[in-house]
Amino acid sequence: MAGEIKLNKEDLEARLLKAPFHRWLGLSVVDVTPEEITVKATWRDEFVVNADAGYTHGGILATLIDIVADFALAARLGRPFPTIDLRVDYHRPAMRGELICKGRVLKAGAQVSSAEASIFDGEGRLLASGRGVYLTAA
Amino acid sequence: MAGEIKLNKEDLEARLLKAPFHRWLGLSVVDVTPEEITVKATWRDEFVVNADAGYTHGGILATLIDIVADFALAARLGRPFPTIDLRVDYHRPAMRGELICKGRVLKAGAQVSSAEASIFDGEGRLLASGRGVYLTAA
Amino acid sequence: MAGEIKLNKEDLEARLLKAPFHRWLGLSVVDVTPEEITVKATWRDEFVVNADAGYTHGGILATLIDIVADFALAARLGRPFPTIDLRVDYHRPAMRGELICKGRVLKAGAQVSSAEASIFDGEGRLLASGRGVYLTAA
Amino acid sequence: MAGEIKLNKEDLEARLLKAPFHRWLGLSVVDVTPEEITVKATWRDEFVVNADAGYTHGGILATLIDIVADFALAARLGRPFPTIDLRVDYHRPAMRGELICKGRVLKAGAQVSSAEASIFDGEGRLLASGRGVYLTAA
Repeated sequence: MAGEIKLNKEDLEARLLKAPFHRWLGLSVVDVTPEEITVKATWRDEFVVNADAGYTHGGILATLIDIVADFALAARLGRPFPTIDLRVDYHRPAMRGELICKGRVLKAGAQVSSAEASIFDGEGRLLASGRGVYLTAA
Repeated sequence: MAGEIKLNKEDLEARLLKAPFHRWLGLSVVDVTPEEITVKATWRDEFVVNADAGYTHGGILATLIDIVADFALAARLGRPFPTIDLRVDYHRPAMRGELICKGRVLKAGAQVSSAEASIFDGEGRLLASGRGVYLTAA
Repeated sequence: MAGEIKLNKEDLEARLLKAPFHRWLGLSVVDVTPEEITVKATWRDEFVVNADAGYTHGGILATLIDIVADFALAARLGRPFPTIDLRVDYHRPAMRGELICKGRVLKAGAQVSSAEASIFDGEGRLLASGRGVYLTAA
Repeated sequence: MAGEIKLNKEDLEARLLKAPFHRWLGLSVVDVTPEEITVKATWRDEFVVNADAGYTHGGILATLIDIVADFALAARLGRPFPTIDLRVDYHRPAMRGELICKGRVLKAGAQVSSAEASIFDGEGRLLASGRGVYLTAA
């Protein structure tokens, strides 16, 4: 689903980084088009769930899906919205390294809207993907 | 669904705190019975999504649901398992303060198992709840 | 979450059976309390997905979870609501025979509400369970 | 995610129509490519949830998403698989008329696999979409 953008890359990043948790995640907006937003997260040692294998915690990936789906809506509609519910599929273990997150609007509605997001590692492998539903009523 | 416990409170907490991200979340195991595990998370300023209102980020709540559902299975089956998928419903804004998380096994299966978790604030209000499916195959 | 009932067993069944698809499913309301609604579905040969093994189609179980979660809200709030999204976990193959469905409100909200449902066979085995989110805004 | 097809259009339709419930839904395979399977459902009066407005029941749409996601995997992997869990987002009311369903593999794994599906009306409007996770272990 395409459309115009209401917030550009700089506006979105400024809005994104108002949240302390987003700053902790080291987020930056890489690109935004009418079809897709791309956000990058910077690795932190605290992301790890398994200290031996060095896997990133699934909660970090779930968080990124929530944020990037929400900000795909923000690019289109002008601001982020409260999450009604979130669903995440884990496809591969996420090893140490930056995380590239792509978000896309599925349906912008008057009362609720849905968006999806996918997370890739630095070599373009799909690590996790999912969807959120957001309360877009005024 | 009831049953015996394979890991007690101390074993579960030791296992839980092996993960750097779980230590960052300030987790401790409050109680474990054959029916339910209770875990507490300690508030951090980095949890905040909205600096004005002080709301806890939905990603923190999603993370806690994943962990506590997984550790409800760990109590029953002897160890945590990789998450296949996670679903979270947000019921109320989560304000500053400790988070009480209760997990329960829905179905322990040979190949996959499902568990649910609910998160409450210090006054017992339901903030979020959800379910995970875990890969329990050997 | 408890509370008063706005629609009793007869009202709920009358409302339920206005839908042609609900009549096809052979639904009846077995019981309703402030905590839980119980609905029964009558077996049909068309429910089958695997003609050799006689398994009930997962789509039938998903349908029942949507209906019974919605009618748990209807009992509490006075009418059924449009489904925003639905999530279903399949726990065991559902063999030929009647299906007993229990629904419960998770959170009744001003704009959206969530409810859960579980489906059992005639011997009380849990076959599937899940949750729906419903648009309860006026 | 692309790849080769193991079952062609005729094989998939023959396999699909072995299920009594799929015959009741009036399913046919319209097209299959390495990227996507397209399936059509024929309208029935029993699909209706609201007799006045003529809306299709959400359970019918959930069923179609489960089937078409599963058969996107069947095209790639050679057979359909048991559903572990299913999630459906409802985007618009589905009025009387044929339903066009498109399925796509998200991740084919050794033990579990995920696929997504979208349902459109005859004029190409997105009515519902969702995902399933399937048990692909031998």
